[in-house]
Amino acid sequence: MKHPIPDHNPMRAQFRAQATQAPQHFLCQIEAGIATVTLNRPERKNPLTFDSYGELRDWFRALPYATDVRAVVLRGAGDNFCSGGDVHEIIGPLTRMTMPELLAFTRMTGDVVKAMRACPQPIVAAIDGVCAGAGAMLALASDLRLGTPRSKTAFLFTRVGLAGADMGACALLPRVIGQGRASELLFTGRAMTAQEGLSWGFFNDLHDPDALPQAAHALAAELASGPTFAHGMTKTMLHQEWNMGLDQAIEAEAQAQAICMQTQDFRRAFEAFAAKQRPIFEGD
Amino acid sequence: MKHPIPDHNPMRAQFRAQATQAPQHFLCQIEAGIATVTLNRPERKNPLTFDSYGELRDWFRALPYATDVRAVVLRGAGDNFCSGGDVHEIIGPLTRMTMPELLAFTRMTGDVVKAMRACPQPIVAAIDGVCAGAGAMLALASDLRLGTPRSKTAFLFTRVGLAGADMGACALLPRVIGQGRASELLFTGRAMTAQEGLSWGFFNDLHDPDALPQAAHALAAELASGPTFAHGMTKTMLHQEWNMGLDQAIEAEAQAQAICMQTQDFRRAFEAFAAKQRPIFEGD
Amino acid sequence: MKHPIPDHNPMRAQFRAQATQAPQHFLCQIEAGIATVTLNRPERKNPLTFDSYGELRDWFRALPYATDVRAVVLRGAGDNFCSGGDVHEIIGPLTRMTMPELLAFTRMTGDVVKAMRACPQPIVAAIDGVCAGAGAMLALASDLRLGTPRSKTAFLFTRVGLAGADMGACALLPRVIGQGRASELLFTGRAMTAQEGLSWGFFNDLHDPDALPQAAHALAAELASGPTFAHGMTKTMLHQEWNMGLDQAIEAEAQAQAICMQTQDFRRAFEAFAAKQRPIFEGD
Repeated sequence: MKHPIPDHNPMRAQFRAQATQAPQHFLCQIEAGIATVTLNRPERKNPLTFDSYGELRDWFRALPYATDVRAVVLRGAGDNFCSGGDVHEIIGPLTRMTMPELLAFTRMTGDVVKAMRACPQPIVAAIDGVCAGAGAMLALASDLRLGTPRSKTAFLFTRVGLAGADMGACALLPRVIGQGRASELLFTGRAMTAQEGLSWGFFNDLHDPDALPQAAHALAAELASGPTFAHGMTKTMLHQEWNMGLDQAIEAEAQAQAICMQTQDFRRAFEAFAAKQRPIFEGD
Repeated sequence: MKHPIPDHNPMRAQFRAQATQAPQHFLCQIEAGIATVTLNRPERKNPLTFDSYGELRDWFRALPYATDVRAVVLRGAGDNFCSGGDVHEIIGPLTRMTMPELLAFTRMTGDVVKAMRACPQPIVAAIDGVCAGAGAMLALASDLRLGTPRSKTAFLFTRVGLAGADMGACALLPRVIGQGRASELLFTGRAMTAQEGLSWGFFNDLHDPDALPQAAHALAAELASGPTFAHGMTKTMLHQEWNMGLDQAIEAEAQAQAICMQTQDFRRAFEAFAAKQRPIFEGD
Repeated sequence: MKHPIPDHNPMRAQFRAQATQAPQHFLCQIEAGIATVTLNRPERKNPLTFDSYGELRDWFRALPYATDVRAVVLRGAGDNFCSGGDVHEIIGPLTRMTMPELLAFTRMTGDVVKAMRACPQPIVAAIDGVCAGAGAMLALASDLRLGTPRSKTAFLFTRVGLAGADMGACALLPRVIGQGRASELLFTGRAMTAQEGLSWGFFNDLHDPDALPQAAHALAAELASGPTFAHGMTKTMLHQEWNMGLDQAIEAEAQAQAICMQTQDFRRAFEAFAAKQRPIFEGD
């Protein structure tokens, strides 16, 4: 696997510097181009804290420069994905904050989603068990979602007296499962079952809990072996075209795809097809 | 139940003045924070008339100031929801109008939808039997929709020689059931069955006709017992973010949620959780 | 059937001049207001070429002036719809082009979609067998889609090293099947089965391969017998409102529908209903 940015590239060196500093508040393993991020406090169902929000934001923000990461798996340790903001470590302190402090917090959580949408690597969320509150938003901010039959996904902000408008939920959820279903989940805070999530388009597929880690890794590996520059462009354009007019979107894609047509991966694919072989992509 | 706006508040007094003037063209009952609006001409399947459009518009426009209403149920008397604009009382006169008169009419009908989307209270539509034309738009403009196995929903504007573009249908319907299904219903005017409506995300649930009124009331009661200030913010943001970019939406939600974090309901929820009790929300 | 634009109208004459010049790179039959466009190279699964892209663009661009066409059926000869851009005739040459040449190509393919969305006639795609790459985009750019149980639809740009951002895919596909499913198809390039396509809202219905041509023709005939001026307005507004705010969309529809209320078809429908007859629409 060649890398488009050479090792002496300063952007890459910068990321290496960050990545070698192992994160303090979640696990991160990078192997064969796949970064596996594990929220790791299973006895509490992997809640988020002020620290882990901030570290996740910084980690995802570094990804655009991380040429050794071609796909991301986001998961929780144990039998659950993530229980969201911890009641005692987050909600309690929030009830005592000033407005500037509150806004700094809600912007920080939103910045995690912005960074997840802005990085070029596709993110596969592996969602077993509880997936709640800000945890449900991490799932929703991912590109692809695999669940298990026992996954329970709840946008339960309303249960703590808050709006369903959190980290982009009112924008993202309607586009994934439809405006009517999203309204129900956001107004009531009720859990979406795994079967609902599959039939509504939240989950791309369901797997047995035992098989989920491998299934998520296999999907990430498939993406990592693809044309990663082009994948990054797909992700960028899904984001860019969110609220463009359709004619504008078509012009934007004409430009984006013309750029991709000058990559070596495009040439490699053609040559492989001409030789009746499977193309081997290198990401440049 | 405390109310965030005291009784001597002039906005509240104004609504009381309006609300005590019982509507002439539909029934309205307000009890325990739930307003039940009933289109009431069952022998004609509850058609809309010039008068009822105007009165619905005014009624929903007053809701932002109606602190004694925390959720709305919208239903039809008898076995049907609403048959839409009456052929003889509406369509006939429209064929003889000037363009300014026509535009005044289409703007009035659109204003009903705008008012339904602009009020902070969630609206639960209880839809049995016929739900057609402008009636289907009242259903679509609601936040949540409950149907029965015999509900028939038809955007039948095309059947009277008109465009599917009526009261926001071309904007709302694709976001609820998808662009392809919406195109079919709007071009052909065919009825969507209850089962289609459920599996496509138009209906949130189906109930037997006998059980529908109670189910709609229970859902409205659940919403009315929730954090109503936050619910209003959820509704506002679902509307505001309709055509925002995703990054803008995330910033908008950071601000909206920070506001909600300064409510008493947020504090109440935290204190209840800490005491392992169910929070009792008061809407402020 | 009367036509709203008389025969001596120069716009109509211009289209006649083009239409009588039979297309060179696909079949086109116009009968009783229905234009049937057949991609016709069945031994190669009806691939697209530089020539057929350009000719399709020009043909759809002429449609706004073609008053003798009230609905379009788009299909492939034999057992397949369209295999997309030909590997040898398109992909090979693209690997050797300059950036201006590449952009001219991607803009041409995008212009086909723009023209399909801009013409007032509804387009029914009849999709049997392979529906891949740019072929899948022709299906997606249609208004309604009928498939068969063996239809396989793949947005396989990623398989040739390109982005999923092609001809508007990142804008159109999420609106039709949801953001999560669209992301999967665009990142992986995997084929969507016919059953998935039906349950996700890509297909409006499935028919046996033998019955598909007749089903597509019947649907087009139903649309062609409808109020075609109003149908054109429905299509225009679905396009116009793509990224409008909801309140703007409602005002836009108030204007659009007021225009339709001054058509003769609206009057015809009212008179037919009053006489308990079926309206006969004439498109003006």
